[in-house]
Amino acid sequence: MQNKEIRLASRPKGLPTNENFQFVDTEVPALKENEVLVRMTYISVDPYLRGRMREGKSYVPPFEIGKVIESAAIGEVAESHSPNFKRGDIVRGQFAWRLYNVVPANQLMGVVPGVSPSASLGVLGITGLTAYFGLLDIGRPKEGETLVVSGAAGAVGIVTCQIGKIKGCRVVGIAGSAEKTEYLKSELRMDAAINYKTDNIHERLKEVCPHGVDIYFDNVGGDISDAVMPLINERARVVICGLISMYNADKPDIGPRPQPYLLVRRGLMQGFIITDYMPRFLEGTAQLAQWFMEGKLKHAETIVEGFENTPKAFIGLFSGENLGKQIVKL
Amino acid sequence: MQNKEIRLASRPKGLPTNENFQFVDTEVPALKENEVLVRMTYISVDPYLRGRMREGKSYVPPFEIGKVIESAAIGEVAESHSPNFKRGDIVRGQFAWRLYNVVPANQLMGVVPGVSPSASLGVLGITGLTAYFGLLDIGRPKEGETLVVSGAAGAVGIVTCQIGKIKGCRVVGIAGSAEKTEYLKSELRMDAAINYKTDNIHERLKEVCPHGVDIYFDNVGGDISDAVMPLINERARVVICGLISMYNADKPDIGPRPQPYLLVRRGLMQGFIITDYMPRFLEGTAQLAQWFMEGKLKHAETIVEGFENTPKAFIGLFSGENLGKQIVKL
Repeated sequence: MQNKEIRLASRPKGLPTNENFQFVDTEVPALKENEVLVRMTYISVDPYLRGRMREGKSYVPPFEIGKVIESAAIGEVAESHSPNFKRGDIVRGQFAWRLYNVVPANQLMGVVPGVSPSASLGVLGITGLTAYFGLLDIGRPKEGETLVVSGAAGAVGIVTCQIGKIKGCRVVGIAGSAEKTEYLKSELRMDAAINYKTDNIHERLKEVCPHGVDIYFDNVGGDISDAVMPLINERARVVICGLISMYNADKPDIGPRPQPYLLVRRGLMQGFIITDYMPRFLEGTAQLAQWFMEGKLKHAETIVEGFENTPKAFIGLFSGENLGKQIVKL
Repeated sequence: MQNKEIRLASRPKGLPTNENFQFVDTEVPALKENEVLVRMTYISVDPYLRGRMREGKSYVPPFEIGKVIESAAIGEVAESHSPNFKRGDIVRGQFAWRLYNVVPANQLMGVVPGVSPSASLGVLGITGLTAYFGLLDIGRPKEGETLVVSGAAGAVGIVTCQIGKIKGCRVVGIAGSAEKTEYLKSELRMDAAINYKTDNIHERLKEVCPHGVDIYFDNVGGDISDAVMPLINERARVVICGLISMYNADKPDIGPRPQPYLLVRRGLMQGFIITDYMPRFLEGTAQLAQWFMEGKLKHAETIVEGFENTPKAFIGLFSGENLGKQIVKL
């Protein structure tokens, strides 16, 4: 059977372009025992994939040039040689960017039943877990504290903001368009939202954080973080979840060092990788699902149609084209 | 009775100078009930005092212009209106920079008996406690881990290095003279010592930390820390104890931001203030005293003689004139 896959054609220099990706026609291999043929339906594109397109040591091995790219995705079982899956089952997992994948059955997980499958890539998937563990385990929010979230209208940011409200925080989101700040205020009922492209972020932050910042959940890094650091309170927690402003940079990330603020306010700054929390994924997913069912947590996604648009959807992440989780629907 | 005190004449711009200090002749006031007259014998000068000479919010209120400066010090009771102290007792506490101080008895602490009194300002005082809690509570050293200490031959650095060895770490000290690195290697038996003024710190760090850096205890900040950050291992702990390279800076501290390293290595960076650990001071002092008595922990100090040299001794901290604790002997 005919198949198609997306390979890394070359390592991006700066912002990735279409030329870094190559579409190749291939064949679907024959199924062996305990393997399952999955027809892909939703592909998650994520900023961290940019790191894997770079050479060198990181927390996951780099993609190789000329080899297929992979990310979290959802599909439908088209054929099964495993007793655990049958044709029509909806499954999720880490999948190569292909129309069809043949994978060992033990690499597949189910999706949360009764919910749009793509939510299992967002609020109920790794995205939601990232917000959950980063905020609760490192950020340790207490009622009445002020939480600032950068990249607040991005996949992880939207979930983080909402969990912050569930925990009784005053939540301030920083995002990059009027549509996004409007969404944060009107739809998600955040206490304030700052458009870093049009607002004076330093002044606005002071206005909307009159009691300083107790938790800063950072998805962005760079200038935006520089504006937040001077406002941190004593014993503030700074969660380094992502640094999307830096992922395409070829030069060292130069700016005001945060150490002086951490010293004087005895603050904590900590990076984390969601896979470190794997032993607690069940706990996190159960809690996220409960909040979701109760209507306390909304799923937000931006869907691009067509496998051929996967690179475009990925590239769009870096100009903030997505509100919530960016998903490609096949 | 005639007295003399040192006041802050003006706020330093950059490196403090003699002109920022003013010697004033005063009178010793009469003792009230429960007060004690203390003849000062040892004054501790510490880098953090520079922060108090600056205007604005910090973790301790700023010194006021025209008012006396204060720091940790030791003295001998010359007269007592308290049943708890008698003439000749050696006491320590936070004292104004004066020849004589009249203080309420309840502000005085004793010194560790049988030990040079000045050690109670260093290894057995706040200095030792700073190393103890910073390293053990935030650094959490495990046997076999690599600990890098900046300002390693300074007051806190020397104690930190030694506690690192007690805990079974490979310890690398960074200091600013051949005399200091020699002391760290020969006298304290550190695994390696780097002279940041003459060595290529990037290359030497790689050489002497072949397995990366698990704990970085930072007393210095700036360029030296920039050289350490790229070497941190997964789950590294960066203890922000001091940033002496920045204390005289009038401009924001610009340099490579550490966030990318913290993210990719899921590292922790945390500032602390020793007074946060006050409820555990007894525990810390007891342990430090035990190690000291067992000969596992050495006290190192640089003594300058004469009250009139107190400003000079303080200013000398910023060019690293001290090996170990800088003390003024009256």
